[in-house]
Amino acid sequence: MQAAIMRQGTLVIDEVPDPTPGAGQVLVRTLACGICGSDLHTLQHGEQMVEMSNESGGTMGGMPAVVMDLAHDVVMGHEFCAEVIELGENVGNCAVGDVVVSLPVALDPAGIHPIGYSNLYPGGYAEQMVLSDFLAIKVPNGLAPQHAALTEPMAVGHHAVEKSIAQAGDAAVVLGCGPVGLAVIAALALKGIEPIVAADFSPKRRELATRLGAHEVVDPRDEPPVDAWRRIDGRKRLVIFEAVGVPGMIDDAMRAAPPQAQILVVGVCMQPDTIRPMRAVTKELSMQFVFGYDPVEFKETLDRIADGRIDVAPLITGSVPIAGVPQAFTDLADPERHAKILVEPA
Amino acid sequence: MQAAIMRQGTLVIDEVPDPTPGAGQVLVRTLACGICGSDLHTLQHGEQMVEMSNESGGTMGGMPAVVMDLAHDVVMGHEFCAEVIELGENVGNCAVGDVVVSLPVALDPAGIHPIGYSNLYPGGYAEQMVLSDFLAIKVPNGLAPQHAALTEPMAVGHHAVEKSIAQAGDAAVVLGCGPVGLAVIAALALKGIEPIVAADFSPKRRELATRLGAHEVVDPRDEPPVDAWRRIDGRKRLVIFEAVGVPGMIDDAMRAAPPQAQILVVGVCMQPDTIRPMRAVTKELSMQFVFGYDPVEFKETLDRIADGRIDVAPLITGSVPIAGVPQAFTDLADPERHAKILVEPA
Repeated sequence: MQAAIMRQGTLVIDEVPDPTPGAGQVLVRTLACGICGSDLHTLQHGEQMVEMSNESGGTMGGMPAVVMDLAHDVVMGHEFCAEVIELGENVGNCAVGDVVVSLPVALDPAGIHPIGYSNLYPGGYAEQMVLSDFLAIKVPNGLAPQHAALTEPMAVGHHAVEKSIAQAGDAAVVLGCGPVGLAVIAALALKGIEPIVAADFSPKRRELATRLGAHEVVDPRDEPPVDAWRRIDGRKRLVIFEAVGVPGMIDDAMRAAPPQAQILVVGVCMQPDTIRPMRAVTKELSMQFVFGYDPVEFKETLDRIADGRIDVAPLITGSVPIAGVPQAFTDLADPERHAKILVEPA
Repeated sequence: MQAAIMRQGTLVIDEVPDPTPGAGQVLVRTLACGICGSDLHTLQHGEQMVEMSNESGGTMGGMPAVVMDLAHDVVMGHEFCAEVIELGENVGNCAVGDVVVSLPVALDPAGIHPIGYSNLYPGGYAEQMVLSDFLAIKVPNGLAPQHAALTEPMAVGHHAVEKSIAQAGDAAVVLGCGPVGLAVIAALALKGIEPIVAADFSPKRRELATRLGAHEVVDPRDEPPVDAWRRIDGRKRLVIFEAVGVPGMIDDAMRAAPPQAQILVVGVCMQPDTIRPMRAVTKELSMQFVFGYDPVEFKETLDRIADGRIDVAPLITGSVPIAGVPQAFTDLADPERHAKILVEPA
């Protein structure tokens, strides 16, 4: 089958073997798959990601995680919606023809494989994938596959908000309005957090932030985001969501934070970063680092999209076939043009 | 009166004006005052401390904090026990002859002054001090002033444990067994945390850790502390208390921590520090920075010392008159000889 393959640190379009479903697995054809910022990171800093995966103990949810080998082909793509086309043995959840989303992990006797960051389980930048039957969730309400594919990135925001101390009655500042920051904003709005102050250099991204529920948007060159919160609130307990993921952001948030604030780090900074711990000590800040989501948050996010509580349509700014993936990786660098580009193989 | 004075970045013994109590204040004579690591830090890095105090918004508990000016004399010493010798106007709590401890802050119409880090309110490295009447707490049970003076540093450990997520049933690793680490160990032991694994290079400090309640002590050159926890437990939820406060400790704790662990930062690192955020992201670590204590924790700590739940006697390794303070600052560099040196002016 055709795939956009990460090979020796570049993306190439080539054929890979058709996957076959094992016991408890299903074969699906990819309907839509979002391109994630983590994939752009991985193409550039893959070794760091592998190093960190190894260091973290090599488990995911208590199961042994199978770490990818960058010397061999990897087909990325973990934000997908797909149609079931063939069942493996011992399948009881899915039926052929079902349109499904799934946590991007596949289980087999060797352990747990992150779909899209695996040598064995290609992700959604290919025509077909193998999913674990029991993790697949049917897309409800006739929701468009393009919108259902946004479940995964929006679940990241849901999880970040759930892991934070933010409750109705609190305020939030969101640093960075890429897809992760926007997902955080949507989850904050549904939790009744007000005000939500969102910051991004890009006017287009700030407009999206407003559409997803931000009450105030700022260009950090014009007004520091925490100053904007002080201007319009300044009294409620504050959670600062760091959704940029470049060096310096955490220290900057620590410098700006009011006493007793929480900094929720959802941006993935792979490089070493410098902080001034004394800044956090004198204000007794807390920090929570988050990653991913759990199955319940994933399902809740799908339901929120399907019943209209989250409108993901404005986030989708482009669609490409598999052959268009390399160019899409380049195009995503422009925040004025793009938020989320979908890969649609058909 | 005689005092050990921080003047132009050095300690000198000289006379300073006798303090006089204002309304709501009392004059006390210093009975015993511990020398704190923060004072050693401040003598070396005073400008950084002033910079951070200014940056943190200049408030303590909602009141304006008056920040010291290093161009003028400062008499340090904030871990004290003292005897009331004169009452100001409108005093209803203290009587002459009372032996008291107090949170090291003085209130007056200008705001809140940290006793011992103030140009106006000398600390316990002087013969006399002025305290706020309503913050003074009578020392119960005929507790020796030398032991009561340990209330302040032991309260730091109590507060750190209370701000952590640690509950009975959890495990803890304590990095560094200086007075702060030892105070944390004592508070953890009283909370029923087990095992408490304590790490320090110094055999003497490790011995003190055991006396204060650590179940396992390690020299980190022989065995990484988190490995020691894995060896003897490895299953309970883990809180890592960073009580060293030098660059590299936080990143090291992040690297060693198991998934979902909390790192409680009670060591005060004034220098810039490098971390690898990705380490914390993949394991969803949380971090809580802490500072000081509240009045309830302070009083509870005094009671714990007075009724024998915390035995502070082993921590006291020396006593000097005011003239001995400069030499004591030097002597404290040797962890084999000293943990806590008391200044006893009389």
